[in-house]
Amino acid sequence: MRIGLSDTHDFARGAAFLGTGGGGDPYIGRLLLEQALKKSPPTPVLKVDELDDDALVVPIAGMGAPTVIVEKILGFSEGERVLRALEKRLGRKATAIMSAEIGGLNALYPVAMAAHLGLPVVDADGMGRAFPELQMVSFNIFGQRSAPLAMTDENGDVVLIESDDNLRVERLARPIVVPMGGLCMMALYPMSGRAVKECAIRDTLSLALGIGRAIGQARKEQREPFESLFAHLRTTEYYRHCRLLFDGKIVDLKRETLRGWAIGHAIIEDFSGQRRLEVTFRNEFLRARADGRTVAIVPDLISILDRETAEPITTENLKYGQRVKVVGASVPPIMRSERALQVWGPRAFGFDEPFVPIEAAL
Amino acid sequence: MRIGLSDTHDFARGAAFLGTGGGGDPYIGRLLLEQALKKSPPTPVLKVDELDDDALVVPIAGMGAPTVIVEKILGFSEGERVLRALEKRLGRKATAIMSAEIGGLNALYPVAMAAHLGLPVVDADGMGRAFPELQMVSFNIFGQRSAPLAMTDENGDVVLIESDDNLRVERLARPIVVPMGGLCMMALYPMSGRAVKECAIRDTLSLALGIGRAIGQARKEQREPFESLFAHLRTTEYYRHCRLLFDGKIVDLKRETLRGWAIGHAIIEDFSGQRRLEVTFRNEFLRARADGRTVAIVPDLISILDRETAEPITTENLKYGQRVKVVGASVPPIMRSERALQVWGPRAFGFDEPFVPIEAAL
Repeated sequence: MRIGLSDTHDFARGAAFLGTGGGGDPYIGRLLLEQALKKSPPTPVLKVDELDDDALVVPIAGMGAPTVIVEKILGFSEGERVLRALEKRLGRKATAIMSAEIGGLNALYPVAMAAHLGLPVVDADGMGRAFPELQMVSFNIFGQRSAPLAMTDENGDVVLIESDDNLRVERLARPIVVPMGGLCMMALYPMSGRAVKECAIRDTLSLALGIGRAIGQARKEQREPFESLFAHLRTTEYYRHCRLLFDGKIVDLKRETLRGWAIGHAIIEDFSGQRRLEVTFRNEFLRARADGRTVAIVPDLISILDRETAEPITTENLKYGQRVKVVGASVPPIMRSERALQVWGPRAFGFDEPFVPIEAAL
Repeated sequence: MRIGLSDTHDFARGAAFLGTGGGGDPYIGRLLLEQALKKSPPTPVLKVDELDDDALVVPIAGMGAPTVIVEKILGFSEGERVLRALEKRLGRKATAIMSAEIGGLNALYPVAMAAHLGLPVVDADGMGRAFPELQMVSFNIFGQRSAPLAMTDENGDVVLIESDDNLRVERLARPIVVPMGGLCMMALYPMSGRAVKECAIRDTLSLALGIGRAIGQARKEQREPFESLFAHLRTTEYYRHCRLLFDGKIVDLKRETLRGWAIGHAIIEDFSGQRRLEVTFRNEFLRARADGRTVAIVPDLISILDRETAEPITTENLKYGQRVKVVGASVPPIMRSERALQVWGPRAFGFDEPFVPIEAAL
């Protein structure tokens, strides 16, 4: 499988859906991907099982507030610099690139970097969606180390972090985002092919492409895009429990950039003015409550989409008065295990309630 | 020359005087130095001119709020870890250790580390006193790079910063101090012997020892310690313009730990209740104003000492009601040059007034 120029819109749209509001504006990522693919052949995509056990796979990801990404574009030089810094530290060249999260910019940037460098990208990621902290990743859940981790910014400065504790790495890296201008690029969780086979969320790059295509194709054929989206999700093994959570317009929006995150909530009212849905976010949409009752919660997916086109809307692009549909979907069992929920379940985000799968929350 | 167990009290006292309130509690540094010297022979001290041109000299320094140092002791493992990390990055072993600032803990710790590692320490530093930011150092004024810079904490994590801009290094390193627990150890400004000859403030380790001895000896012989201190300073080439700025008790003290610094001011009132001196600090004492008129200002030295024993008092040990004498002293021309004043003159600290040498401020 390869990702070429004709795939970029679909891939960006699907990555935005899986990004559940976060992961950075996919528009910027799409432009970068198109820029890379105009100069390079389509990016080869490797299935996890195709990896050599001793391959060196390096995830590349941006860190910062999505609200900054729309104002400041990081190009290829940042990704290359941070990859070279990590390779130098490891004394070995990367054999493949991977996404740490299959949401927004962080889904697209590694594919663009892979094309730019002439390396393959792995059809997998570490979240199966997007999450706001760097220990919230399946690699961590399975005991992989995020360090050595290299981070860089537009000034060309490089910071290398060494630690055996992923939560401490998050705490050390996060405050550096601010002097790095609110957004930086990092290479982290360098892993063997063997480790990727054990701990990655598989086939999520294909998943993003499929979701984006389902919406795009319906639009092209003037079919109802949400029906097409749901029909496609129901063909997947793990994301098939999906449904429309709400249909209405945004009547209240609170959003602030705090300690490098975009934090807040959106209130959506239905067109009868009778019911309200509250969606809480920290970069990503984390919980949806209809009239005070939780209808979907992390790690299950909550996406807010334009109610006509089914184009996913990121946190920083939410606007007062927008007419939207809110969609929820289930995630793979690897993301709902006890160990996983300890890292990215409701309580990890400060919600005082247990995880209830979307298929049971009706 | 060597520094042995019989020198530790004098050296710590002199380093506290030159620290002008900052550089970290010298008491902690003295304990560490004594611990090292109980197991190792006296630390050999090299004059700058004794260095080989191609020696690799590595300054080691703590960064953080002095208020934290009294609650948390960093031992030898932190200094060794950070030195080894830098050596690994440079592909070369250090041939000598140096102080970045000859104030408080940061004067003592490198001497203790040198004894512990069996390396010589250089009779010089980069400030001729203490300053609160890492670009405020003569090495920077002469164009040396602070990076690669390694920092570590009690958890064993290591952060390596690469940058060609020393101000950006300060901005990247400073916020990491907070997740590192308010205090960390760093190895920075790795330099050749040739560079040290060009840009270090010379003989400041001897200077600290001499100042500490002058006070200690007077006490032992029951002479007036301030007279002995002034008599000694007047024998030095550069610090001979010295005088008593004020004699009184602390009647007001404002001190907060802000962004990794101890920031505030002390108001000292004379015993007639007629006159007041305001000493402003950010880790170090920066400006002394008597009745609204500046009588001493950075980079000249301002030290607050116990009015009976002439023991220097650090910022974090100032107390309401303390009876103190405030002493001012001149610094070497290398510290008062135009280039130097741009980096650590009054305006670099936000004071809207020019530098006036203490000998002219009368």
